[in-house]
Amino acid sequence: MKVAILAHGKFPDRAKTAVGVLRYADHDVVAVLDQDAAGTRATDHVPGVQDAPVVASMDDAPDCDELIVGIAPIGGGFDESWRPDVRTAIERGCDVTAGLHYFLADDEEFARLADDHGVALNDVRRPPEDLTVAEGIAGDVDAEVVLTVGTDCSVGKMTTTMELVEAARERGVDAAAVPTGQTGIMIEGWGVAVDRVVSDFTAGAVERMVVDAAADHDLVVVEGQGSIVHPAYSAVTCGILHGAMADRLVLCHAAGRGAIHGYESFALPTPEEYVDLYEDLAAPVQGAEVVAGALNTKDVDGDDAAREAVDEFGAAIDAPATDVVRYGAEEILEAVL
Amino acid sequence: MKVAILAHGKFPDRAKTAVGVLRYADHDVVAVLDQDAAGTRATDHVPGVQDAPVVASMDDAPDCDELIVGIAPIGGGFDESWRPDVRTAIERGCDVTAGLHYFLADDEEFARLADDHGVALNDVRRPPEDLTVAEGIAGDVDAEVVLTVGTDCSVGKMTTTMELVEAARERGVDAAAVPTGQTGIMIEGWGVAVDRVVSDFTAGAVERMVVDAAADHDLVVVEGQGSIVHPAYSAVTCGILHGAMADRLVLCHAAGRGAIHGYESFALPTPEEYVDLYEDLAAPVQGAEVVAGALNTKDVDGDDAAREAVDEFGAAIDAPATDVVRYGAEEILEAVL
Repeated sequence: MKVAILAHGKFPDRAKTAVGVLRYADHDVVAVLDQDAAGTRATDHVPGVQDAPVVASMDDAPDCDELIVGIAPIGGGFDESWRPDVRTAIERGCDVTAGLHYFLADDEEFARLADDHGVALNDVRRPPEDLTVAEGIAGDVDAEVVLTVGTDCSVGKMTTTMELVEAARERGVDAAAVPTGQTGIMIEGWGVAVDRVVSDFTAGAVERMVVDAAADHDLVVVEGQGSIVHPAYSAVTCGILHGAMADRLVLCHAAGRGAIHGYESFALPTPEEYVDLYEDLAAPVQGAEVVAGALNTKDVDGDDAAREAVDEFGAAIDAPATDVVRYGAEEILEAVL
Repeated sequence: MKVAILAHGKFPDRAKTAVGVLRYADHDVVAVLDQDAAGTRATDHVPGVQDAPVVASMDDAPDCDELIVGIAPIGGGFDESWRPDVRTAIERGCDVTAGLHYFLADDEEFARLADDHGVALNDVRRPPEDLTVAEGIAGDVDAEVVLTVGTDCSVGKMTTTMELVEAARERGVDAAAVPTGQTGIMIEGWGVAVDRVVSDFTAGAVERMVVDAAADHDLVVVEGQGSIVHPAYSAVTCGILHGAMADRLVLCHAAGRGAIHGYESFALPTPEEYVDLYEDLAAPVQGAEVVAGALNTKDVDGDDAAREAVDEFGAAIDAPATDVVRYGAEEILEAVL
C-alpha cells in the first residue's frame, strides 16, 4: 500500500508515528508532508529508515492509497492547519488514518467528504465497545510476557518492542508484539490505544490482548506507554503494568533526558529509582524484574559517546543495556529468554 | 427530596452507594429495595444511619421523587433483574439516578419511558465532554490538599473523605470534598467519576476538580479510588495520586482484609508496604506523606477488639489512626492540619 504521512513542523523529532511507520510498517511511503522541511528527504533526517521525499502539502504528494496523520500533539487534538491536506487526500480518493483523541470520522466535513468520495476514515485510537475490567489472569498465560517500560514519553518503548520482536523472530522464536498505542497499531494492524479506553478498563484492555497474543505465540512483547511518574499519563502506565502481568521488564530511557518532556518542572528520578518504582509496584500483582535496558542515544554525538552512555545506563540499572537502533536488540533478547 | 434506593441482594455490605446515601446525603430515604431483606429496616443492618424500611420492590415503596440505583457490580453493568423496578419508578413519575458504566439514558426502553413520563435519567458516571490531559498544576493551589488512598476497594475512602470534611467544618475550617466516584457525586451533587473518563485524562479530571475546589476552600479532601496494587483498578488510583498532587495522604484499610476483594488470589501487601508504595510513587510528582490511617472495623466484634485493631494499624503505619465511623475523624483532622 502506498501512503503519505503528515508531519507538519514536527518531522522527525516530534513525529513518532511518522518515524515508526517509516521504520517498521510494510507500507510504501511516497511522501512525508512537512512544510518546514519540504525539498529534503526522510533519510536526511533519520538514517536507516525507508526513504521518501518531504513535501509541503498533499498537493505535492505522488499518487497514494492513504494519508496517515503521523503526529499527535499533547492532548491528541486535531490541528486545524492540517485540514486542507486531509481534505485534499479525501478528494484524491485516499483513505485517511489517524491516532488522535479527536476522531476524524466524527468530523462533519470529513465524514461527508469521505462518504462522497468512497474512502475510509480510520481512527485507530477508537477503542472497541466491549472492553471491561481486568480479571487478573494475564499471569496465567502459557507464554513469556515482556513489557517495555519507560522513564518518560518518547524514549523508545515502541521502537524497543518492535526491535525485540524482530530479533526474536530472526532467532526462530515465535514472538508477537502487543501494540498499545497508535503507531504500534498502524504498524501491526491490530491493537488497542490503551490511553483512549475508559480508565477502569485500562488493565482489562491490556489483559485481553496479552491473553489473545499468548494463545498463538511463545514470546509476547507488550508495548508500554508513558511513565509511572508522569504527571499526566501515569494512570495508563500503571494499568498496563498490572494488566500485562509481565514476567520481565525492559526499561527504556533517552540519553540526556533530565525532565519530563512537556512538563519540564518535573525532574526524572534516576534510572535505579525507576527500577525500584516499577518492580515494587509490579510485585504485589505479579513479580517482574527489570532484566535489560534500552537507551535511545539519537541525541548523543558519535559512536564512542553513545557506547559510553549505554554502558553507564546498564551499570545504573545493573542489567545489560543497548541502543536498539544503533546496535539491535540481541542483548535484550538474551536477557529476556 | 424523597428517594428510594435499589440494593437487591447486596444490602448493606455490597451496597456502598446505598449506605453512603443513607449516611451522608441530604435526601429523605423512604425505602431501600432489597428482596432478600424485605420486612427489615435499614438500621437493623447499619446502625447510626437514617432509618428506612427495606421493601421487596418499587411496588412496595412509598411515594418518592427519585429512585437511586445503590449498587454497582464489578464491571458496572446493569442487572436485568432490576429492570422492573426502574420501569415502575419511571411510570410512577420518579427520576432515576445511577452510577453504572451502563448508562440508563442510552437504554432504549428507559429513554422512551422517561420521555413519556417526563422524568430525568441521571447517569452520574457519564464524564464531562471537555476533559483533557493534566497540566501538572494541582500542586500550585492555595489550599491544603489531602487524598484518601486505600489498600483495596471498599475499605472506606469515601466515608473517610466525608467524615474528615465534616470534622473540619465543625472545627470552623473551610473544607470541601472532591468526589471522584458515583456515591460521592450523589452525596455532594458535583464531581467526576474518574474511573469512567478516558484513561489519558484521569489525572487531568482530578487536577481540574482540585483547582476548582481550592479556589474557594482552605482544605480540599480528595476521595481516592481503588488501590495502587489492584489488578484491575490501579490505573485510576495512580491517576488520582498524580493528578491531585496532594500534600498529605490518609491510608484507608479494612480490618481483617487479607486479599483483594473479588480477586482473592492476590494477597494484600502489609500496611507499611502500602505507605512506601504510595509515598515512593507520589514523590517524583509531588512529595506526600501518609500522615494518618483510617481503619474500617465494621467486621470486628466488640469495642475492645476494634480499639486494638486501630492501635495495631496505627503502629504499623507509624501514624495516628482511627475508625471514622466509630470514633469520628478528629484524630485524622489533627494530623492533616
